[in-house]
Amino acid sequence: MKNIAVILSGCGVYDGSEIQEAVITLLAIAQQGARYRCFAPNIAQHHVINHLTGEVSEGESRNVLAEAARIARGDVEDLTLLSEKEFDAIIFVGGFGAAKNLSSFALDNDNYNVNEQVVNAAKMFANVDKPSGFMCIAPALLPMIYPVGVKGTIGKDSATASLITAQGLTHIDCEVTDIVVDDTYKIVTTPAYMLAESIDEAAVGINKLVKHVLALCK
Amino acid sequence: MKNIAVILSGCGVYDGSEIQEAVITLLAIAQQGARYRCFAPNIAQHHVINHLTGEVSEGESRNVLAEAARIARGDVEDLTLLSEKEFDAIIFVGGFGAAKNLSSFALDNDNYNVNEQVVNAAKMFANVDKPSGFMCIAPALLPMIYPVGVKGTIGKDSATASLITAQGLTHIDCEVTDIVVDDTYKIVTTPAYMLAESIDEAAVGINKLVKHVLALCK
Repeated sequence: MKNIAVILSGCGVYDGSEIQEAVITLLAIAQQGARYRCFAPNIAQHHVINHLTGEVSEGESRNVLAEAARIARGDVEDLTLLSEKEFDAIIFVGGFGAAKNLSSFALDNDNYNVNEQVVNAAKMFANVDKPSGFMCIAPALLPMIYPVGVKGTIGKDSATASLITAQGLTHIDCEVTDIVVDDTYKIVTTPAYMLAESIDEAAVGINKLVKHVLALCK
Repeated sequence: MKNIAVILSGCGVYDGSEIQEAVITLLAIAQQGARYRCFAPNIAQHHVINHLTGEVSEGESRNVLAEAARIARGDVEDLTLLSEKEFDAIIFVGGFGAAKNLSSFALDNDNYNVNEQVVNAAKMFANVDKPSGFMCIAPALLPMIYPVGVKGTIGKDSATASLITAQGLTHIDCEVTDIVVDDTYKIVTTPAYMLAESIDEAAVGINKLVKHVLALCK
């Protein structure tokens, strides 16, 4: 049975993992006959957003790993403990957590960096030619993991795409129901909630991503 | 297009809505051609549980409505604003939030009560013969909404079931992949994570619940 490492970045679209994308990913992995384990960095969130008002909750702090545990029913592990030897592929869920906690993309648009634990985890898989999946805004991580020219999509937003292409991504416009595949590096990307206007629309692309990542596993 | 009110109780299995159940419910509604809006009470959570350690986060407080907004990408409404006139059915998601925030079942086992906003919302639908769905531990709410003898399931845990039957529920044992239907009151229940050992197992019962609730809509 194929085993997939799923990387979370908190719990909630505005300051962590996009919850619906995360659950759809886990469900798709299980429904397609594979299994998963969830990981997240044990670091403080960049900030806490009240998801009802959209405002920053001043003075409040939350931990990325502890909040990610909510999605995984407690079953989440410290990202530094991830070993690619135990897995066939790695998938990064979207949400602002990917752009605020896993990287600084949402904060330092034209000069962002990616958390070292995240780079190390992703490169472990890249270095041994194991496939990976990135959805929503998570493809912003790609230029810090793969060589210049790596292919991926964040949908159709040219302003956002140009910030990532400036770092080395070859961006390919993509519909929400479709995927972009980099066959050289075995990377699958899909826009998910960068474009989705409903949960079932997001699910179509995410299901395709999971299916293709599993197909790329040896 | 049928419109379903989905009632959330926070964000995280140990102190709020079971996230996977909630997302699977929303996905099932959309995939089966209906639409939904999410509601939650604007009240403080009973407490906050660190989902990594399982321990109470002393001194921390969170709001049920604001946390539920994380699951719904911000799109959640105050439960007191819910009108059955706009909906065809109501579905209650599980998680300890149903037993700690929507009711006191987890705290006052043999003498629990249900939040008045929750009772009012559910009775609006019951009073006009509109169908309802309750999953996981949420059927604990049934005796405070429907007359003695109302049928439902929380799975196979006889100790838990006996506490609810003491209040008037007629409990029927049920597999995780199945549903129990009360045809008199148009109520569908399924065990979900009261029994599920995996996300795809939970999804089988929840998909059946949503399908049957939609079928019961006029």
